[in-house]
Amino acid sequence: MRTGPKASGPRTASQIAHHVLARAEENARLDRYEQDVKSAFDAIVPTLKRISALQHETDFESRAQDIARRELGFELPEDILADAWVERLDMRRLHAWCTFATYRRFCDDFFSRDPLAAEEGDRHFNGGFEGFLQTCGFHTLDISPCADGRLAHLIRYVLRLPHRAVRRKSYAGALFDIDDSVQKWVETEMLRFRSGRPNTADAPTRYLKLVAYHFSSSDPEHEGCAAHGSDTTKAAAAGLERLLGFQQAIENSFCCGASIDLLLIGVDTDRDAIRVHVPDAEGGMAVDRYLDVMELYETTARLDASRARHDIQDAVRQTSPGVAEGMARLIERLIENNLSQIDSVRGRHGERYADIGHAEHFIGAGVGFEEIQLRNLMYFAYLDTVEEATQDLDVGIRIFTGLNVRRGLPAPVVVRFDYHGQVPGARDRAVARCRRVSEAIKSRYADLFERGLLHLMQVVRDCNADAPIEVLACTASADAKAGGHR
Amino acid sequence: MRTGPKASGPRTASQIAHHVLARAEENARLDRYEQDVKSAFDAIVPTLKRISALQHETDFESRAQDIARRELGFELPEDILADAWVERLDMRRLHAWCTFATYRRFCDDFFSRDPLAAEEGDRHFNGGFEGFLQTCGFHTLDISPCADGRLAHLIRYVLRLPHRAVRRKSYAGALFDIDDSVQKWVETEMLRFRSGRPNTADAPTRYLKLVAYHFSSSDPEHEGCAAHGSDTTKAAAAGLERLLGFQQAIENSFCCGASIDLLLIGVDTDRDAIRVHVPDAEGGMAVDRYLDVMELYETTARLDASRARHDIQDAVRQTSPGVAEGMARLIERLIENNLSQIDSVRGRHGERYADIGHAEHFIGAGVGFEEIQLRNLMYFAYLDTVEEATQDLDVGIRIFTGLNVRRGLPAPVVVRFDYHGQVPGARDRAVARCRRVSEAIKSRYADLFERGLLHLMQVVRDCNADAPIEVLACTASADAKAGGHR
Ligand SMILES: [Zn+2]
Ligand SMILES: [Zn+2]
Ligand SMILES: [Zn+2]
Ligand SMILES: [Zn+2]
Repeated sequence: MRTGPKASGPRTASQIAHHVLARAEENARLDRYEQDVKSAFDAIVPTLKRISALQHETDFESRAQDIARRELGFELPEDILADAWVERLDMRRLHAWCTFATYRRFCDDFFSRDPLAAEEGDRHFNGGFEGFLQTCGFHTLDISPCADGRLAHLIRYVLRLPHRAVRRKSYAGALFDIDDSVQKWVETEMLRFRSGRPNTADAPTRYLKLVAYHFSSSDPEHEGCAAHGSDTTKAAAAGLERLLGFQQAIENSFCCGASIDLLLIGVDTDRDAIRVHVPDAEGGMAVDRYLDVMELYETTARLDASRARHDIQDAVRQTSPGVAEGMARLIERLIENNLSQIDSVRGRHGERYADIGHAEHFIGAGVGFEEIQLRNLMYFAYLDTVEEATQDLDVGIRIFTGLNVRRGLPAPVVVRFDYHGQVPGARDRAVARCRRVSEAIKSRYADLFERGLLHLMQVVRDCNADAPIEVLACTASADAKAGGHR
Repeated sequence: MRTGPKASGPRTASQIAHHVLARAEENARLDRYEQDVKSAFDAIVPTLKRISALQHETDFESRAQDIARRELGFELPEDILADAWVERLDMRRLHAWCTFATYRRFCDDFFSRDPLAAEEGDRHFNGGFEGFLQTCGFHTLDISPCADGRLAHLIRYVLRLPHRAVRRKSYAGALFDIDDSVQKWVETEMLRFRSGRPNTADAPTRYLKLVAYHFSSSDPEHEGCAAHGSDTTKAAAAGLERLLGFQQAIENSFCCGASIDLLLIGVDTDRDAIRVHVPDAEGGMAVDRYLDVMELYETTARLDASRARHDIQDAVRQTSPGVAEGMARLIERLIENNLSQIDSVRGRHGERYADIGHAEHFIGAGVGFEEIQLRNLMYFAYLDTVEEATQDLDVGIRIFTGLNVRRGLPAPVVVRFDYHGQVPGARDRAVARCRRVSEAIKSRYADLFERGLLHLMQVVRDCNADAPIEVLACTASADAKAGGHR
């Protein structure tokens, strides 16, 4: 881990000069939530270390439960503790169990309390973000970031967008599946025609696909995108190429001038600053033509608010003279939002994040995970089948081999499929997909699984109800033990 | 194999009394084409037996090539023949190679000559079948038969429909994938809205999904649908349940009264006679309420044509009084078409087919296979991934274990993905899917593959051009030998 040149530890919020456009209250609220969740996960390893040290004491079980209740907020499964006097305490299973229990509690909190709800102002001004998006000329914003956990907070933190107003599909290297995206486009257009949602089909708006690649400004050769060998130019070029492939697929598959709009951004995962490849008048983007929001942060921090906004507008248009008016307005909003995030990271961490590398706590595989809006919490492989997503999963397993397996800890994998409860049979199909994907993961990583170094929890959720997640099975749970791993 | 009570072998066409509505010329044309193709595949085993018997003769290679040219119409790969003096002739590889070569020639003929083009009359009368379908109130006919090869000729032979005017997706037990069908429905509706294809969205037509289950009238307990344990009632009930699930998924996922129409038919694979579960006024069907077209064949065969048609109309309405007018008209057409097929089977085979059981020559896996409109030629598993289609493939492999593997012959599998050539990158994606699915098949059936009892040919085709198939790789080909199976 790099620490970089710092005077004397992270600055406190009161010492640092904030950007004039940074929203202090929103920052405080988002920061508090992130700290709460992260510290719950971060407490697992030290707590288990303490408990492990006690495993040969006579009153082990009750002392362990005391510590767990106090430090983790829940009790541990009795059967694992009870077995400790015979064999050694099964730390792998216990670690996976605690990770899954913490995840479950975190989900329950998210869906009951809605802690990342959009700011009041955002929700009511101008029809909310959806309304704003339409005035920019777009009826849908479909974002594909890299599956990397350091981008999991892209929507709600880095770009400060309401997470429910945006589609997110994460792929290793941001290399989204074109056929899947074409299907989404078709579904979106059909709903506009049939139901006038989110607007009627005759409104002159388009589907906007955004790709977010990433890089590390302080250690570009090692902490960039694993899927592109930490080569920033390659990551950007691959994202742009995929975007153009999607656009061409739409243009060539459907007649009557069907098309979509595209936007490419890069994220510096050390500081959460974005760069925006502002499209020109024809929508064209270039890998080496972008607006660096970190620079803009520096040059506009001390201006007054209206002057700062004016400079942002100028910078967007200077990057690509001729950029469409609506696209420019959307980009300005993303930039101003991003200034708050940059400000927040600086305020809390100084020059850069302490954990500039990977530090995810688990892997998420499947469809859903709306609650995951936090950095470095989960590696996300959006998938229908393991067969089609081997690359995404292999990258995730490689990351967890470095993070956990080499320390003797398991890679916890949450397999999750959300479904629309109003559709008959949808839950059954989600359950069947969970089971199928879990079996395929066990078989692909059989070696890890057999050694207890891969644990799986199967989860479904009705995404149309405000429902909690529903846990179907878990290899770390007591009932899974009798027959060995399940 | 059952032979049943027959007087003295199959009757010839001149001995048999034909049904008044049977179309003799069409029957002759379809019959001739089927004979041509089937006899080419049927020649492989006897020819290879003759060649095998010669393998230790001194002029083996040239005599073998003479026989192959004469009996099969092509030469055999020299490297396989040349190796025969060292080891024994690799009959497994040779058998797969001949099957693939015959398939390729059959495809080339199909796409260059269009031997199953619709009859002149059908093409021009009333806007062709598509026009007729719309007058019945349907803009799309989407058919899911069982993957069983004895239903592969359902569209063009049993129902006498133009194969290009109908969607076909085959699944084991006809248990089609609801999500896949919902996607197709969405795409269809979107094209109506956007492009007015096949008709504009305001036309009061609907999407019609048809499921075809099957049974064997002469040996119902053994030669019915393998996926339903040869239980006819179960096969029908499962098909109906899946249809209703699809309808409910559409109704609950999309507003504004979105719905689809349904039709369930059963096919007696001994005689190609259908039974039609005629929907009532509300579109409701029942497993035990159907019109048996075999019975109708008997009672109407000797009437005059207009009386026979009149009786068909009556029978449809007696089965389900209140059936919608358009649905009734479509069913009448299917019935009249089916009478020709029944007549043809009777004329050629007498009481029933000689091969009432499985007799497929290869397995087809993937998306495409438009040319497969012949009975008992190919077991068809429509699939995107092996992971999602294990049941369909397992049934196919089980069938070929009975047909080929127990005789020491391989199961030849054609992995095929058709693509739309006008979409950039579509060919590349089809090639990648071919490779992915082939690897997954090899790994699932590794034991058979290692023993040379499973051979794979990878094929793609641009289904928008009138293009031939393109062979990418073949485990039975010479260049695949050096490094073992590929
Ligand atoms: Zn990445
Ligand atoms: Zn949903
Ligand atoms: Zn079947
Ligand atoms: Zn096609």
